[in-house]
Amino acid sequence: MIKPKVVILGGGFGGLTAARSLTSIADVTVVDRHNFQTFLPLLYQVSTAGLAADHVAYPIRGALRGSGAKFRMASPISIDHKNKQVKLDSSELLDFDHLIVALGSTTADFGIPGVSEFALGMKTVNEALTIRAEVMRRFEDLCRFEDNTRFSISVVGGGPTGVEMAGALAELVRGPLKSDQANAAAHIDVRLIEAGDRLLPPFSPSLSARTKKDLEKLGVQVMLKTAVKELEHRKIILKDGSSLPSEITIWAAGVKGSPAMQQLNLPTVGNRLSVEQTLQVKNYPNIWALGDIAGAVGKDGRALPMVAPVAIQQGKFIAKQIDRLIKLKPLKEFSYVDKGSMATIGRNKAVVEVKGIKLAGTIAWLTWLWLHLFYLLGGRNKIGTMADWTWNYLTFDRGNRHIMDSEIN
Amino acid sequence: MIKPKVVILGGGFGGLTAARSLTSIADVTVVDRHNFQTFLPLLYQVSTAGLAADHVAYPIRGALRGSGAKFRMASPISIDHKNKQVKLDSSELLDFDHLIVALGSTTADFGIPGVSEFALGMKTVNEALTIRAEVMRRFEDLCRFEDNTRFSISVVGGGPTGVEMAGALAELVRGPLKSDQANAAAHIDVRLIEAGDRLLPPFSPSLSARTKKDLEKLGVQVMLKTAVKELEHRKIILKDGSSLPSEITIWAAGVKGSPAMQQLNLPTVGNRLSVEQTLQVKNYPNIWALGDIAGAVGKDGRALPMVAPVAIQQGKFIAKQIDRLIKLKPLKEFSYVDKGSMATIGRNKAVVEVKGIKLAGTIAWLTWLWLHLFYLLGGRNKIGTMADWTWNYLTFDRGNRHIMDSEIN
Repeated sequence: MIKPKVVILGGGFGGLTAARSLTSIADVTVVDRHNFQTFLPLLYQVSTAGLAADHVAYPIRGALRGSGAKFRMASPISIDHKNKQVKLDSSELLDFDHLIVALGSTTADFGIPGVSEFALGMKTVNEALTIRAEVMRRFEDLCRFEDNTRFSISVVGGGPTGVEMAGALAELVRGPLKSDQANAAAHIDVRLIEAGDRLLPPFSPSLSARTKKDLEKLGVQVMLKTAVKELEHRKIILKDGSSLPSEITIWAAGVKGSPAMQQLNLPTVGNRLSVEQTLQVKNYPNIWALGDIAGAVGKDGRALPMVAPVAIQQGKFIAKQIDRLIKLKPLKEFSYVDKGSMATIGRNKAVVEVKGIKLAGTIAWLTWLWLHLFYLLGGRNKIGTMADWTWNYLTFDRGNRHIMDSEIN
Repeated sequence: MIKPKVVILGGGFGGLTAARSLTSIADVTVVDRHNFQTFLPLLYQVSTAGLAADHVAYPIRGALRGSGAKFRMASPISIDHKNKQVKLDSSELLDFDHLIVALGSTTADFGIPGVSEFALGMKTVNEALTIRAEVMRRFEDLCRFEDNTRFSISVVGGGPTGVEMAGALAELVRGPLKSDQANAAAHIDVRLIEAGDRLLPPFSPSLSARTKKDLEKLGVQVMLKTAVKELEHRKIILKDGSSLPSEITIWAAGVKGSPAMQQLNLPTVGNRLSVEQTLQVKNYPNIWALGDIAGAVGKDGRALPMVAPVAIQQGKFIAKQIDRLIKLKPLKEFSYVDKGSMATIGRNKAVVEVKGIKLAGTIAWLTWLWLHLFYLLGGRNKIGTMADWTWNYLTFDRGNRHIMDSEIN
């Protein structure tokens, strides 16, 4: 029997899960513009000097080793539906029987002017290293000024990403930077801006309130019901017309499907791909979509959260769907098993909500810690991350404060 | 008693040693263009995916914590000898009673055309990440070509740096890259080019021969008595007129004093600063130089090797000299205590030469390993490096194969 050819665009959580689930029944090729998977849930720890950049990345060829799946480092340019081929920017044409689009997401600015020019995103290792370098540069400026100049770091967006970022920044400033030069650290403000009336909208209001209190204890200025109208150089203009100085603005207000989906000319809904409940892209029965780039599939028509568990479940599901097609069985409809949400705020501080059970504080924090270690790909990253975390925890230090962005030589 | 003001230009091994030795008797400021020290002896392991970039760096403020020394992230522009001030590119003027120049070295091209355009240097973290990214990109190209195209990586210079680099590259290609995609890895050639008639000139000829044999066992093509005339795009032109294809050329043929020394307008000899046996810069009794940037101080007029132990010994020595001046005691003359040389070639393979004792193989390799861990600054880097090394050793893998240079987003 000739195995069907499956091309998977994107080597993230979803793409790699699909690849590994498919290699026994299909001839699989994974395509990604990076030769590594980025472990996005821990990227904010690279931004805040807690983890080494290399430890939140994992070589895709390493992840696929022994599976028989092929890898191509490239970006897709277009799909030739007639000949069932996808064209890559490496000039290759890959034949496919099934195409899985798992390209993930990019920062969404919701049409707010200035976001792409003046805010820093949180989606790639390079962006994380840029945030780290910018924070450390501003800190070095304050050390040099030796006066009362203040610097503000603003995180826009009070979801899990924004909360984790703001908490980690506050700990960096009040911990290691204070030890480095106390007076300079005392002149850095960390602020979290949220348009809604509470933080962490996916959680219960009691955990939202707890999160706000915990962040404020760490020194974060939490601003609720504060909508951003526009960003300017070192400045945030609010909807009410007032403005805030902001030397560094980090955009955690939302993401949208990767721009590559426009290029591929597939049907979209909102800013994600339009998919059936089977996870097939609308009108294209041999093209599948999963994870952040796939639009609403729930029975209520609500889009699923853009988190790793969704992509992983969908990756496994699509592999089974393709198997059903091969065996001439009917397709099923995807339904997401929500295993709960969690967000870490800082040392011994996190919130976890699983099926009505609410946890906060140290137990929640330990749960967060072990689940992230468990999901981290590869033994070396586990060991390295555990070593960095243990060190940070015991010494209250963060060793990776190096300015290593592309600006330096 | 008012403490004298000491400004130290450069936060490498020598500068930081001097700083820590001086804080009890002087008011110390360290100036460096990076906010971290780079552990240069292990940088080649970043280039070859063995270590995370963050683990060969250490925050200078962390190294100076508790010592009372100040830090400025900046580069020196000029010295005002009359007012005893050094001007920084951050627009600051720092007063000094003593100035210590510890700016290190940069790649030397010996006037060979094309080196700065077509060769990759080995002096900074960014250069190391560029080498890693270039090697991995060429490997991904070969994976895509799926034909008999060959790629050559050439290391120019058969000293310890070139030997360690060539050995580590060969192990990367024959180990992890072979596991990633055996056919592509088999099409990569690693070559070491040396103008002299043996490798490792500072060692005994028997260890040079052993090193050559060990490298060849790893698959490195060792070319002795091969002088480079010029570099072109993807090509090396030799003195005899012949040429070699070389997709990646790594320059390990030598270093010279940092170019900042020209800017500071201090007397030079060859391409390093001209210093007295007291380590004072010629004609400037209150300006000192140490490490790679300091010229010959030996009684025989021979320049000292550009290695960390020289800089560390000189850093301590200059601190004592300044103490002697404060106590109105006569200055002494520096003499270097040579503690031996070592170079690692690969897994269980190294050469060590200490006072006539010659070691090779596993014992030499273990000696190299422990001495480097001992010299590595900071507990976190020790733990992280040990974790990466243990992992690499047990699994024959190298986890940091990520393409993370400034070219990607």
